[in-house]
Amino acid sequence: MAAQPLARPRRLLPLSLGLFQAALLLFFALFVTYDEPSARVEDASVAANRLYGIFPLFQDIQVMLVVGLGLLLTFLPRYGFSALTHNFLLLNFSTQWALVLQGLLHHFHHGQVHLNLHNLLIAEFAAVTVLISVGAILGRTSPCQLLVVAACEVPVYLASEWVIVTQLGVLDVGGTITIHVFSCYFGLGVSKALFGATQQPAHPKETPTPRSDLQSLVGTLILWVFWPSFVAVLCQPGDAQHRAILNTLLAMSASAVTTVVVSSLMERDGKLSPGHLQNGSLAGGVAIGVVADMTVPPVAALALGSLSAIVCILGFRFLTPLLARKLMLQDQCGIHNLHGLPGVLGAAASAIVVLVASEDASRSQAFPTGVNATEVSGGPWGDGGAGRQALCQAAGLAVAIGGSLLAGLLAGATLRLPCLARPPEQLCFEDSLYFKIQDEDEDSGLRGSAEEAALALKEQV
Amino acid sequence: MAAQPLARPRRLLPLSLGLFQAALLLFFALFVTYDEPSARVEDASVAANRLYGIFPLFQDIQVMLVVGLGLLLTFLPRYGFSALTHNFLLLNFSTQWALVLQGLLHHFHHGQVHLNLHNLLIAEFAAVTVLISVGAILGRTSPCQLLVVAACEVPVYLASEWVIVTQLGVLDVGGTITIHVFSCYFGLGVSKALFGATQQPAHPKETPTPRSDLQSLVGTLILWVFWPSFVAVLCQPGDAQHRAILNTLLAMSASAVTTVVVSSLMERDGKLSPGHLQNGSLAGGVAIGVVADMTVPPVAALALGSLSAIVCILGFRFLTPLLARKLMLQDQCGIHNLHGLPGVLGAAASAIVVLVASEDASRSQAFPTGVNATEVSGGPWGDGGAGRQALCQAAGLAVAIGGSLLAGLLAGATLRLPCLARPPEQLCFEDSLYFKIQDEDEDSGLRGSAEEAALALKEQV
Amino acid sequence: MAAQPLARPRRLLPLSLGLFQAALLLFFALFVTYDEPSARVEDASVAANRLYGIFPLFQDIQVMLVVGLGLLLTFLPRYGFSALTHNFLLLNFSTQWALVLQGLLHHFHHGQVHLNLHNLLIAEFAAVTVLISVGAILGRTSPCQLLVVAACEVPVYLASEWVIVTQLGVLDVGGTITIHVFSCYFGLGVSKALFGATQQPAHPKETPTPRSDLQSLVGTLILWVFWPSFVAVLCQPGDAQHRAILNTLLAMSASAVTTVVVSSLMERDGKLSPGHLQNGSLAGGVAIGVVADMTVPPVAALALGSLSAIVCILGFRFLTPLLARKLMLQDQCGIHNLHGLPGVLGAAASAIVVLVASEDASRSQAFPTGVNATEVSGGPWGDGGAGRQALCQAAGLAVAIGGSLLAGLLAGATLRLPCLARPPEQLCFEDSLYFKIQDEDEDSGLRGSAEEAALALKEQV
Repeated sequence: MAAQPLARPRRLLPLSLGLFQAALLLFFALFVTYDEPSARVEDASVAANRLYGIFPLFQDIQVMLVVGLGLLLTFLPRYGFSALTHNFLLLNFSTQWALVLQGLLHHFHHGQVHLNLHNLLIAEFAAVTVLISVGAILGRTSPCQLLVVAACEVPVYLASEWVIVTQLGVLDVGGTITIHVFSCYFGLGVSKALFGATQQPAHPKETPTPRSDLQSLVGTLILWVFWPSFVAVLCQPGDAQHRAILNTLLAMSASAVTTVVVSSLMERDGKLSPGHLQNGSLAGGVAIGVVADMTVPPVAALALGSLSAIVCILGFRFLTPLLARKLMLQDQCGIHNLHGLPGVLGAAASAIVVLVASEDASRSQAFPTGVNATEVSGGPWGDGGAGRQALCQAAGLAVAIGGSLLAGLLAGATLRLPCLARPPEQLCFEDSLYFKIQDEDEDSGLRGSAEEAALALKEQV
Repeated sequence: MAAQPLARPRRLLPLSLGLFQAALLLFFALFVTYDEPSARVEDASVAANRLYGIFPLFQDIQVMLVVGLGLLLTFLPRYGFSALTHNFLLLNFSTQWALVLQGLLHHFHHGQVHLNLHNLLIAEFAAVTVLISVGAILGRTSPCQLLVVAACEVPVYLASEWVIVTQLGVLDVGGTITIHVFSCYFGLGVSKALFGATQQPAHPKETPTPRSDLQSLVGTLILWVFWPSFVAVLCQPGDAQHRAILNTLLAMSASAVTTVVVSSLMERDGKLSPGHLQNGSLAGGVAIGVVADMTVPPVAALALGSLSAIVCILGFRFLTPLLARKLMLQDQCGIHNLHGLPGVLGAAASAIVVLVASEDASRSQAFPTGVNATEVSGGPWGDGGAGRQALCQAAGLAVAIGGSLLAGLLAGATLRLPCLARPPEQLCFEDSLYFKIQDEDEDSGLRGSAEEAALALKEQV
Repeated sequence: MAAQPLARPRRLLPLSLGLFQAALLLFFALFVTYDEPSARVEDASVAANRLYGIFPLFQDIQVMLVVGLGLLLTFLPRYGFSALTHNFLLLNFSTQWALVLQGLLHHFHHGQVHLNLHNLLIAEFAAVTVLISVGAILGRTSPCQLLVVAACEVPVYLASEWVIVTQLGVLDVGGTITIHVFSCYFGLGVSKALFGATQQPAHPKETPTPRSDLQSLVGTLILWVFWPSFVAVLCQPGDAQHRAILNTLLAMSASAVTTVVVSSLMERDGKLSPGHLQNGSLAGGVAIGVVADMTVPPVAALALGSLSAIVCILGFRFLTPLLARKLMLQDQCGIHNLHGLPGVLGAAASAIVVLVASEDASRSQAFPTGVNATEVSGGPWGDGGAGRQALCQAAGLAVAIGGSLLAGLLAGATLRLPCLARPPEQLCFEDSLYFKIQDEDEDSGLRGSAEEAALALKEQV
């Protein structure tokens, strides 16, 4: 079925991936050794304990990305196997690619690249941006195109993260700006450049079934449960990490309840929309990342969680259709509503928190700072420092949006290269295009044909 | 479809939930700050380590409640989305509500409420009682009714827990009496008051399909795996916690094997019943909670696990139909078999353990007590003390059953208020009543119609 | 349906299992107490911390075995409930049986058996061998037969592990040789003896559906995520454990990408095979176990991961059909490709690593050994020592293959006892034989009948 026009890219995928694996092996053989913390640290048990501190959180994040996000993407009923597999492949490819680039960029001047769990985690964060971005073009792209997106996005992310965090000094422990906002606008840029000025028609296989919606909701719940680990893994151990966990838990709890409220108000008959639940419940986690370890009062976490669920659902209801109509912007998973809007909200909140915390700190000791906490309130900044930090947060947001949109548009343009043949429209959202799976989905397909047979027969009779 | 009679409650849900969120924000803004352990504790790394000790277990419990319990409830084939979502909503609402009440009750006299992960965990335990109780009325109730149950049950639980643990001094580290027994009889009370003297007819959508049974079994397995974290999270670190984990593992392993034995003996053809597997495998975890950290010999854990699986399955086979016939008692998920009977068994076991351990301790040092262990054996009690403690365990059980039944009946009566319109019988067990999901289940529905078409056609022909 | 010929084994299962539970209780009552680490160790918090170090990894492994492996086995569309339940039952039965045998064998001369989490973990490892072995005969065997396999395999495993690790001094921290290779050839032996010289015909219910393939892939992903915990749980804390985790992560990442490359090259149209993805992605984890904590360079982990994915997929494509044709060897899940071939590869790699590391160490300090690391490189061995250790690794592999094949053949022969009646061919791969589940699978079944109705009608017309 349509194997001819796809023949070339079908060789392209294994060949390019295979080449990449070979290059990876070469790079590792030449430059990479393991970090041996206890060779440097006096007490080996200290090194071991530090490792145990990060490893459970690392596993949590792996579950989120591989199982949680994978299942969330299976809402397309006949594209579940592709969604799960492509997500898995992209995670591995992008992490490896980020390891290579990180090695070249950051560690190369030390002669040897020292690998440890922390490096690997940072590389996985780079891969997360790819997993988010491709949500905008899910189902209408070939695996080759997805790999090109990954190949382009990882270096841009590393550069952008360097500018935002290292150069501008933006505080963003949970990756709200550097990961979520960045990957959202990168993905939208790719989508715009790839699909151009033509509005994509509604596809019959796009509609979720009750079962695919349920599966996707399970993915959401897995993400929801482990999100605190994602936000807190890079925090300073101690009070700051404790606070980050609590802030995330509160924000996500508020998001979950608010999603039910707002989604129910959207429809005249009060029915909840599965898409709202799948996304709105997570919006708080996106927004809270940037302020999670700051000394904000708990009410701020709740308010931010509620607000981001509201903007997320309003985005699905009003903004996505508007963008599709006016800008011909295709956003299959609604990443703008889950990652873009709440991310911008979080960034704005961080600027306010920085300003307010500094004022408060100069007035009174309302928010005592723990010994290990990021010292947001006053002290190191003074009043002018707080203002400057707030500006930095805004500048970081601007860099993340501007840089990623531009880079995304460029990356999307390369996806139109003829050698990366996009799947024909009638084969979109269809597992059987890339997998040796029965051509028809067992249910809808065969059932459809049974129905059709019956109907055709009826007419005959 | 039947939108008219449901119009009012459909506005009621978002309005009341929204109001609650606003009140929560207000309460948090006025009274709640974060606990900063390291401001009090000298060594910040000690505080951090204590946090790491509890956080992985906390995450395990979140997985149990959100994913495990959620999936377990999806055994109703056309009600999976509702089961998962309502469970998720109730968990969040009840936790928030418990945080407010806890803040008011326990901490208010300190002026400020200090929030930390431990408080949040305690609040989540309160929410667990709600999640268990509503199992009795699953599928025949509206979300508004479920929220009313939660609103009533949380304060009653907090009061009951205060009486049982603080006043009576009952030992119950795993919540067997305070959580499982309490929530079971509360739920049965609600069910009795709500459905009154009419026996609910068997509903065609109540029957699980192979797929929904499989999904539900996955939920059971997730609960089974993480149950030790639930039982041990509040134990004293060290030997007591080690023992609690081992006791739980042994009890649940015995439950799993015994379930297969007993379920197979129940039927003439030796076939296993999915419902028995889904529930019996967990019964040991319910029963072991109350003695988990005591210095019981391992064989006691195995025996308790086996016994509770037996009573659970006998309950499903004989007691549930009996209660339905004689008392017109509706218990959709069989919470009496999973939480009630094993809970009572566990409570009885705890009284025996207390007595026996004390005798043993006075005779010999058969069960050496670890330095951190709850000092059950002898010492602090003497012989009279052990007798008194055994009585306390019995009294705690009586309070849990009596108080919860009474409160449940009252709560159930409020569910009959006309403004909380219960879904009409023909729309029970149906996702499409509350969610924007295709009206028919993709399979049974459409297939049904294809079949019907074919059959109708046959007759025509 | 065919209840008559199965009547006896149907009583056999609960009776024998029940008897076993009773014997277990007796054994525990007589001999087993809990280990109380802090009664021996001075500092109780040290004991507690050691417990916390192992418990999260233990939970990860439980998730792998109960949920991950269970779901992986549900690729047979009408046998999912059986696969999940039998896996769960076997895990519990085998762990209990291993506890009894361990108690008798290792600890009995101390008078009392002291149980702790570490013992339990070791017993669970024994159970893993059973779970892997029965993959070869999945779907064509009764639960009674599976229990007989478990009863035979656990003691053989314990003996084999004693010979390989204690007597020969084989280094195998992740169980590549002792668990994976052993259980693979044991399973193949059982299959050969059970099914004899007749080639099993392709069964219509053997073919996965898109949905069962998806479910199975989710199981793979869960296994993939938690595999590092399985490999690293028994490592020395500190650098060795850190290295084991990193090596496993790298090997599995390379496996995942290589699987896509090789599977895509296998087919003319470049489509990926679900079976390859479900197994190939995990092959690296099998192979890496034996060298995971050695001081290998990271590139070796990547290379081993890629190579094992390649041999796994080539095995599926060429070797399995060949073995089925030439040796009439039935291997339902392809355990030879996932556990056998990569295991042998890993064993070979370990011999090479031992030799190379020793040479390197005598030449230079290229691979500095951490303080806690298994001191592979040079030092304790000298040059002759390395050669002897390499021989030991080879000898261990030979023992694992030879012993298990022989024992498996014997075990398989006992499965042919008439009292263990195998399910009749037409009822294989069918949940409804052992579970009170609707006779037909909801979809395929009923849909089939709708289709058939329509077709029959067509012919009629």
